[in-house]
Amino acid sequence: MKLVTFTAGAAARVGVVDDDAGEVRDVGDLLPSGAGLLEVIDGWAELGPLLADRAAALPARPLDSVRLLAPIPVPRRDVFCVGKNYREHVAEFGRSGYDQPDRSEALPEHPVVFAKATTSVTGPFDEVLAHPGVTAELDYEAELAVIIGRGGRGISRDAAFDHVWGYTIVDDVTARDLQRRHKQWLLGKSLDTHCPMGPYAVSADEVPDVTALQVQSRVNGELRQSAAVKDLIFDIPELIATISAGITLLPGDVIATGTPAGVGIGFDPPRFLAAGDVVEVSITGLGTQRNRIG
Amino acid sequence: MKLVTFTAGAAARVGVVDDDAGEVRDVGDLLPSGAGLLEVIDGWAELGPLLADRAAALPARPLDSVRLLAPIPVPRRDVFCVGKNYREHVAEFGRSGYDQPDRSEALPEHPVVFAKATTSVTGPFDEVLAHPGVTAELDYEAELAVIIGRGGRGISRDAAFDHVWGYTIVDDVTARDLQRRHKQWLLGKSLDTHCPMGPYAVSADEVPDVTALQVQSRVNGELRQSAAVKDLIFDIPELIATISAGITLLPGDVIATGTPAGVGIGFDPPRFLAAGDVVEVSITGLGTQRNRIG
Repeated sequence: MKLVTFTAGAAARVGVVDDDAGEVRDVGDLLPSGAGLLEVIDGWAELGPLLADRAAALPARPLDSVRLLAPIPVPRRDVFCVGKNYREHVAEFGRSGYDQPDRSEALPEHPVVFAKATTSVTGPFDEVLAHPGVTAELDYEAELAVIIGRGGRGISRDAAFDHVWGYTIVDDVTARDLQRRHKQWLLGKSLDTHCPMGPYAVSADEVPDVTALQVQSRVNGELRQSAAVKDLIFDIPELIATISAGITLLPGDVIATGTPAGVGIGFDPPRFLAAGDVVEVSITGLGTQRNRIG
Repeated sequence: MKLVTFTAGAAARVGVVDDDAGEVRDVGDLLPSGAGLLEVIDGWAELGPLLADRAAALPARPLDSVRLLAPIPVPRRDVFCVGKNYREHVAEFGRSGYDQPDRSEALPEHPVVFAKATTSVTGPFDEVLAHPGVTAELDYEAELAVIIGRGGRGISRDAAFDHVWGYTIVDDVTARDLQRRHKQWLLGKSLDTHCPMGPYAVSADEVPDVTALQVQSRVNGELRQSAAVKDLIFDIPELIATISAGITLLPGDVIATGTPAGVGIGFDPPRFLAAGDVVEVSITGLGTQRNRIG
């Protein structure tokens, strides 16, 4: 099932999308009062079958007649993110000098995990703020994001997919100057609007083999990144096992799994984003997000 | 005003503490239904004067008859934390080899900001889990934490204190092996129960000069850390201005400002925490937290 959070008037609503028909159905009346997508994920054992049974009978409207928000517009906490998780990206990041002064291209021995603040989350077609005066080195990072369903601590590799509710797209927009200047990456990764999410939250049953998905980004129509999820250095079970070893994962937690080669600092000289640029990120079956830099 | 979140039965309640008398007054009936300390901070312009007027008339009970939770048991997002923010601690961290292989003791040129996951927050007298099998290098970090009142982005140094609601204590408990192994610090800083907070959330009007406060920690009664907040490399206005430059701060956001010298890895050989150890953190006027490692 493809779920969205949208507005057609004032309040945000949860919708079920028929991608082929280009339609969305407002399923709010089937849900507990006030429930957003987080509550749908919390109650998925009951609400998943309910929506599967009854959403199709509800009136549909054209998808392009509504405004899509991030599927989870206000996450319960910061987004977990993984750095340096595709081989070629590790090499380009190393060569750029933005990671370590010695420009090491060595692969990480353990997952590099950091956070993006909740307030960085924005909609899949919203403007990404350039923040002039704060950063002069804006970059894109197309990523597959895992949405946790059942929470837990000490989740094993074997059990990891039992805890995955589904998937979405994240552009891990990065202020490279801040990322380098502050050593720890939170600030450089967390400027307002620097986490476009969506368009859809897609339940795991629609994704038979997540490793087969292709992650792509385009800037002003030019293909920049393209890689399969099978190329992750640390795969999804490894990420879930590593993070949850001592940290209780919660329903609705988002884990952005890392970006492939082809980001702006992978070019020499770097190709940073500028106002007016349009970044598109697509993943097989998960749709396309398209954000203008403003 | 000293505010707490406590349980005396089932549900968490907000209380006002009279520290000298060792008493707490349940002020829940003065608040909007269901309001916790986050909502009190949101509505402080009205609720602060109301509590100042009317709390004293409510029945008091002994503070030691209730269980204190973290003042903000479930923050709206991860706790902002600052690393390497006292000179002597920068030196001991550098010498330890846990920061960089070259053991550099150079001071940071910009604040080093990272996050602790919400699920690390625990009460001021609760057990801190040792997480055997996940970490073997558990360390303490006594810190003054700022609680944001009025949110905002682009807050200037001059306006910074207008956005401070008040203060509390945080022990930025750290799994040093994870901190080093994963490069970015989120995992090493975020194990469940590794952010004891409290006992009190103290409104800023009770703290005429925050730079005069003394931050201390003891392990099994032995003084380990002791420094004044005036010794911060990046002071509170600088931290608020730096974080909020591109990130909207929210009411209730917690910023842990960094730890003084005297942590476990400051010793040679390092003195890590073990099950049964008791860590106490005190700050002038903010009380004392006391957590057993379990």
